[in-house]
Amino acid sequence: MAAQKKLKMGMVGGGPGAFIGAIHRSAALMDGLIEITAGSFSSNPEKSRQAGEELMLDPSRVYSSYDEMIQKELALPESERIDIISIVTPNNVHFDPTKKALEAGFHVVLDKPMTLTYDQAKELYKIIKKSDKLFCLTHTYTGYPMIKQMKQMIAEGVIGEVRKVYVEYPQGWLHKLLEYENKQAEWRTDPTRNGKAGCFGDIGTHAFNLAEYVSGIKVAKICADLDIKVAGRPIDDDGAVLMRFENNASGILTASQIDAGCENNLKIRIYGEKGGLEWMQEDNNTLRLRWSDRPDEIYRAGNGYLGSMANENTRTPAGHPEGYIEAFANIYRNFARTIYALRKGEEPKAEWLDFPGAEDGIRGMAFIENVLASSASDQKWTPFNVEF
Amino acid sequence: MAAQKKLKMGMVGGGPGAFIGAIHRSAALMDGLIEITAGSFSSNPEKSRQAGEELMLDPSRVYSSYDEMIQKELALPESERIDIISIVTPNNVHFDPTKKALEAGFHVVLDKPMTLTYDQAKELYKIIKKSDKLFCLTHTYTGYPMIKQMKQMIAEGVIGEVRKVYVEYPQGWLHKLLEYENKQAEWRTDPTRNGKAGCFGDIGTHAFNLAEYVSGIKVAKICADLDIKVAGRPIDDDGAVLMRFENNASGILTASQIDAGCENNLKIRIYGEKGGLEWMQEDNNTLRLRWSDRPDEIYRAGNGYLGSMANENTRTPAGHPEGYIEAFANIYRNFARTIYALRKGEEPKAEWLDFPGAEDGIRGMAFIENVLASSASDQKWTPFNVEF
Amino acid sequence: MAAQKKLKMGMVGGGPGAFIGAIHRSAALMDGLIEITAGSFSSNPEKSRQAGEELMLDPSRVYSSYDEMIQKELALPESERIDIISIVTPNNVHFDPTKKALEAGFHVVLDKPMTLTYDQAKELYKIIKKSDKLFCLTHTYTGYPMIKQMKQMIAEGVIGEVRKVYVEYPQGWLHKLLEYENKQAEWRTDPTRNGKAGCFGDIGTHAFNLAEYVSGIKVAKICADLDIKVAGRPIDDDGAVLMRFENNASGILTASQIDAGCENNLKIRIYGEKGGLEWMQEDNNTLRLRWSDRPDEIYRAGNGYLGSMANENTRTPAGHPEGYIEAFANIYRNFARTIYALRKGEEPKAEWLDFPGAEDGIRGMAFIENVLASSASDQKWTPFNVEF
Amino acid sequence: MAAQKKLKMGMVGGGPGAFIGAIHRSAALMDGLIEITAGSFSSNPEKSRQAGEELMLDPSRVYSSYDEMIQKELALPESERIDIISIVTPNNVHFDPTKKALEAGFHVVLDKPMTLTYDQAKELYKIIKKSDKLFCLTHTYTGYPMIKQMKQMIAEGVIGEVRKVYVEYPQGWLHKLLEYENKQAEWRTDPTRNGKAGCFGDIGTHAFNLAEYVSGIKVAKICADLDIKVAGRPIDDDGAVLMRFENNASGILTASQIDAGCENNLKIRIYGEKGGLEWMQEDNNTLRLRWSDRPDEIYRAGNGYLGSMANENTRTPAGHPEGYIEAFANIYRNFARTIYALRKGEEPKAEWLDFPGAEDGIRGMAFIENVLASSASDQKWTPFNVEF
Repeated sequence: MAAQKKLKMGMVGGGPGAFIGAIHRSAALMDGLIEITAGSFSSNPEKSRQAGEELMLDPSRVYSSYDEMIQKELALPESERIDIISIVTPNNVHFDPTKKALEAGFHVVLDKPMTLTYDQAKELYKIIKKSDKLFCLTHTYTGYPMIKQMKQMIAEGVIGEVRKVYVEYPQGWLHKLLEYENKQAEWRTDPTRNGKAGCFGDIGTHAFNLAEYVSGIKVAKICADLDIKVAGRPIDDDGAVLMRFENNASGILTASQIDAGCENNLKIRIYGEKGGLEWMQEDNNTLRLRWSDRPDEIYRAGNGYLGSMANENTRTPAGHPEGYIEAFANIYRNFARTIYALRKGEEPKAEWLDFPGAEDGIRGMAFIENVLASSASDQKWTPFNVEF
Repeated sequence: MAAQKKLKMGMVGGGPGAFIGAIHRSAALMDGLIEITAGSFSSNPEKSRQAGEELMLDPSRVYSSYDEMIQKELALPESERIDIISIVTPNNVHFDPTKKALEAGFHVVLDKPMTLTYDQAKELYKIIKKSDKLFCLTHTYTGYPMIKQMKQMIAEGVIGEVRKVYVEYPQGWLHKLLEYENKQAEWRTDPTRNGKAGCFGDIGTHAFNLAEYVSGIKVAKICADLDIKVAGRPIDDDGAVLMRFENNASGILTASQIDAGCENNLKIRIYGEKGGLEWMQEDNNTLRLRWSDRPDEIYRAGNGYLGSMANENTRTPAGHPEGYIEAFANIYRNFARTIYALRKGEEPKAEWLDFPGAEDGIRGMAFIENVLASSASDQKWTPFNVEF
Repeated sequence: MAAQKKLKMGMVGGGPGAFIGAIHRSAALMDGLIEITAGSFSSNPEKSRQAGEELMLDPSRVYSSYDEMIQKELALPESERIDIISIVTPNNVHFDPTKKALEAGFHVVLDKPMTLTYDQAKELYKIIKKSDKLFCLTHTYTGYPMIKQMKQMIAEGVIGEVRKVYVEYPQGWLHKLLEYENKQAEWRTDPTRNGKAGCFGDIGTHAFNLAEYVSGIKVAKICADLDIKVAGRPIDDDGAVLMRFENNASGILTASQIDAGCENNLKIRIYGEKGGLEWMQEDNNTLRLRWSDRPDEIYRAGNGYLGSMANENTRTPAGHPEGYIEAFANIYRNFARTIYALRKGEEPKAEWLDFPGAEDGIRGMAFIENVLASSASDQKWTPFNVEF
Repeated sequence: MAAQKKLKMGMVGGGPGAFIGAIHRSAALMDGLIEITAGSFSSNPEKSRQAGEELMLDPSRVYSSYDEMIQKELALPESERIDIISIVTPNNVHFDPTKKALEAGFHVVLDKPMTLTYDQAKELYKIIKKSDKLFCLTHTYTGYPMIKQMKQMIAEGVIGEVRKVYVEYPQGWLHKLLEYENKQAEWRTDPTRNGKAGCFGDIGTHAFNLAEYVSGIKVAKICADLDIKVAGRPIDDDGAVLMRFENNASGILTASQIDAGCENNLKIRIYGEKGGLEWMQEDNNTLRLRWSDRPDEIYRAGNGYLGSMANENTRTPAGHPEGYIEAFANIYRNFARTIYALRKGEEPKAEWLDFPGAEDGIRGMAFIENVLASSASDQKWTPFNVEF
């Protein structure tokens, strides 16, 4: 019997100087389930070629466009052809390659947010739903084991009915006008490449996604106050949103790129009728369970007392910290495990199917739309509309 | 020459079972500048007598009402008479004893909030301004040395123009309906004794006061979302307020009594054009200064490198933690030092004059008024009105 | 019936520039059980007079020596006379005033270590045992509520038989030769005033006392390595001690005054057969209970679930941090409560009697003796000898 | 021109149920510089085959012994043959495969400690020195970026001459007799497979290695107290070592497997004449620089202000936590980068050459030898002997 083959992945974007492409690669490679076989790493063919050389790819699998990659890979025998296309380009190059990849029969991993515009998202949502291929949107933070533990404990009723959600995402790297000196800053503040929301497109969507993911409840209405704190910047770099969830729980979401000195300390705290749960990325292997009438409890990754969601998303024993790349790798691993299971005709575990996808994508784009509308309105509350 | 005498203080309220009265006493006594000489500790004369006996007061100085205390103390020779009246009753018994004490010629220390109603506050404000006696409102948290250091560093421009203020005050003790079993819970959720705001009258006012105190900037408009999370409670127990300051800085203020498991971890974070400052009560001797381009710095109470505001409000060397009672005692000590200085005809130090007073009081009551109005409104923004 | 009178205290030492005298005063005053009535604050009569004036004492109760204080106070009617003498002088002035105060019939509070020499300690121990007056030695750190909770939980078997004790006391203030510029540094490094151990007399004794107090087990043998890290200093400023307790538990005690940048973060961790307990002064209101098979638990001061030892030594509700001065005040309060109870012919609570005394003193002095002997020896183990 | 090929790695050990083998694989794969091509994963041929199948290796490259692997790989054309052999077996199977792999011309990565016995280590040291192949010993903790920053700052004199080193490695997983139920516990407490030191062979060597690595100074003499705390266990599970370094700095090293509830929080603190540096694995992206006369500074991984050692060993921007697997991956990456550089005839960067090797190995084995000797001795000090 021939040995099973690793899943083969082709990458769109992620050439020299890109931050997130390298993270995707480490995440995909780490668990030995995926190998990177092909790529169109840049719209500049020479840069794409260089990236392929650095990654030691077969030069014949390094392409100058994703169109070329899709076409030439399709021409290869199925056993050699890539299985997955991972798309890590700026937001204006999300819709088209995803659509084409799915329609050509490749599984797709896409960096968030789903698309440049809400209209694209609605269209892509339909395409994904029609496709028999898998789609994964890398809302990284849902990959942390203690986030999954938090979600599971809330779902199991440990803290009772949710009343209150705080989610905050403070960054400070754009507290000055870096746009002319930093490539990341350049495209992320350019509405034609990033979309019409700046901070709220980039990281506000992560905070929103995390709040709904962990609480298990949808946002029903919002009241937003976005602002541009650095003169000369065309799109929001700071803001706050009051929220009410479908069960009337209250929420406060803040996101900023101008909280000078803050790195990336995404934090979520949820309180229910009986207790509270708190997690922050800076100490991502810890989850604090608060009680009013007995000592708080400290749940730590890698311990035997954790639930199945955390356990399926951990690699090391307690006290050997995993981090951001592993959270990312959990998404790739669950995606890959699901593909392997389907390939073998087996039922994937529920814990593996728990990777973000089309619903996360469309709600994230709706969040941008609704937040901008609310921020521009004199009315306090804007219903959280989402069409698909 | 006769020795200087300690300041003599009479107390209104603070009888058996009261929490804050005992804190006021420890705070007043700790530095040896004040002695407790008299009191009307309860509206129940027998309870007042008992309290006086426990405090080992001369029984002739224990009164059955503040009216009696004021009258009988005035009848004593000036060298024996109390100098200060400290008022630690529920909010519905703030206005009248303060008014009478000031008009009778006593200095007054009053627990916050200033009064039961905004109308009372406006009237009391005028009385205080007309009086030649000193008035102090115990917004405790402004007494912490590292809060004063934070204020001083912002005033000196260390972090540049303020852009962003986060202040949060999460408590969980009222996450259940305790009103019928706990005396504190009983009056603090009763509008006739606490005033018409619950959580926002009790602790929201602290958060608001701290935000304006530390930033040195006034709030200009607000957007509030208050709620009652525990069924059967007549007044708010949770809420959030979006704020804009006079310089257009954005603010987010949250206060809750239903964040189950939270104790009392008031936290304030302020970011400016150049850096950020973060403080939380749970680790009150630490102030973190964040930078984007160099390591963050950890300022710690009791060190020689701190400014005059922190140094005048510290008792122990670095590493010997002071806490809540010392913060309270700083307010009493500064109040007392000011009285001693005036008595000797000396100019009090600016650091001593930095105790909260009438402006803090009237703005706190206006905050309650404006927050309730905003929360009830469909309009997003309510101007922060304050009349006096 | 005449009102009960506050306990009156006279102080020896604690004049201008002294650190610990002011702490003793705040601690004694805070709870309203003791008043400071007399003092001989300095061996320099003019400085003593000044100190008395600053403290607003009756000038007739300010003395130029403790001999004079004892003699003149004895001449006063009992109802006016001081009850307690608090001794806060350098170590060379511990033995004589304590002996005389006890023999004259005063209760004594003495700053640690008990005496300058071990011989004095042995003699003083006998005097204390013979006296019918109370003796208290201010090993401050045993006054913290969460230390008392830790002791109580260990005594109740929560973590099982103790196997391991880590205690560390890192300071950095003497990492340079400060002796010629700093009064505290001057006497604390002078063997004629501080005793023959430097760092180990000053803070090593605290660490040792805490280890035995919390574990409830006595040290049986030690292996010490002391050193002088700053050239020109006559006595130890750094060291470590391996220990074995009577039940064969292992211990590691470290103390240093040259750990540059360290403030005063005394820390103790004890592990038993079933779990572990960890406390550090920098976060003194928290006690962590570690488990191997379930989440760790965070015990916090002021909560209803704590034991009687913590509860009797707390003033504020959870989340309102108490600190070093309150720990000190707990010692004074328990001492005073015991005196009041005895005065009334009542049995003092066990929790009140839990203030450090003669045994702590003699063992502390034996610790110095044994540590110096061990450090000078080529043999690994020195038995922990103590004679009294 | 043909594309450069990834380095090919064969693994010895790491079959089903092994913890460290999977970590080695993730670490080797993460950066895309190495692929796993071959292996003899177990001494049981069927288990080896299974492991190869799970890893989706070509079955012809899965061997039933390392002897077979070495022989058959040598028979392959050089372009297909593995370049590196990674050895992750219990300690009794370290010496032989390493010797044979080096002598056959493969680069070797070996899990620590180097060998089962000191005699083997001395022999292997000579073999490594004679070989022209590279040898790497995975002392993981030296791979953390902030550990490298700490080393670099000390080498650059930031804290002045080192005076004091604290290193502690507390684990609790063996606080009960697990030997009969847990495979890891079984071999790690068996002298014939683990070597004659238990806790001190397993984790004491890590702590020792880290202390010398970070400080840049060698240990000169030691005084050890090892113990067996769990009845029925044949080798040490707990201990402490006093140390003096060659410059007379004092050190305290503790390691335990019975500190119930402790996970794996290796911690190192070093103090010099001017300041101190502190790092702990639980918060591995943070390094605290302590000062006595100005605020402490918090160095955080991923920031631009760090030195070359940290920067060459980081993958993510500040605030995106890396952890244990990345520290491990840094060792593999530096090893691989060095091989690539040598292959191209280029000079490897100093930062890449900074992976642990033969000296670390021989000193680690000498540490075990000396610690056991010292612990058994009545003399206080044992010189730190090392022969090679």
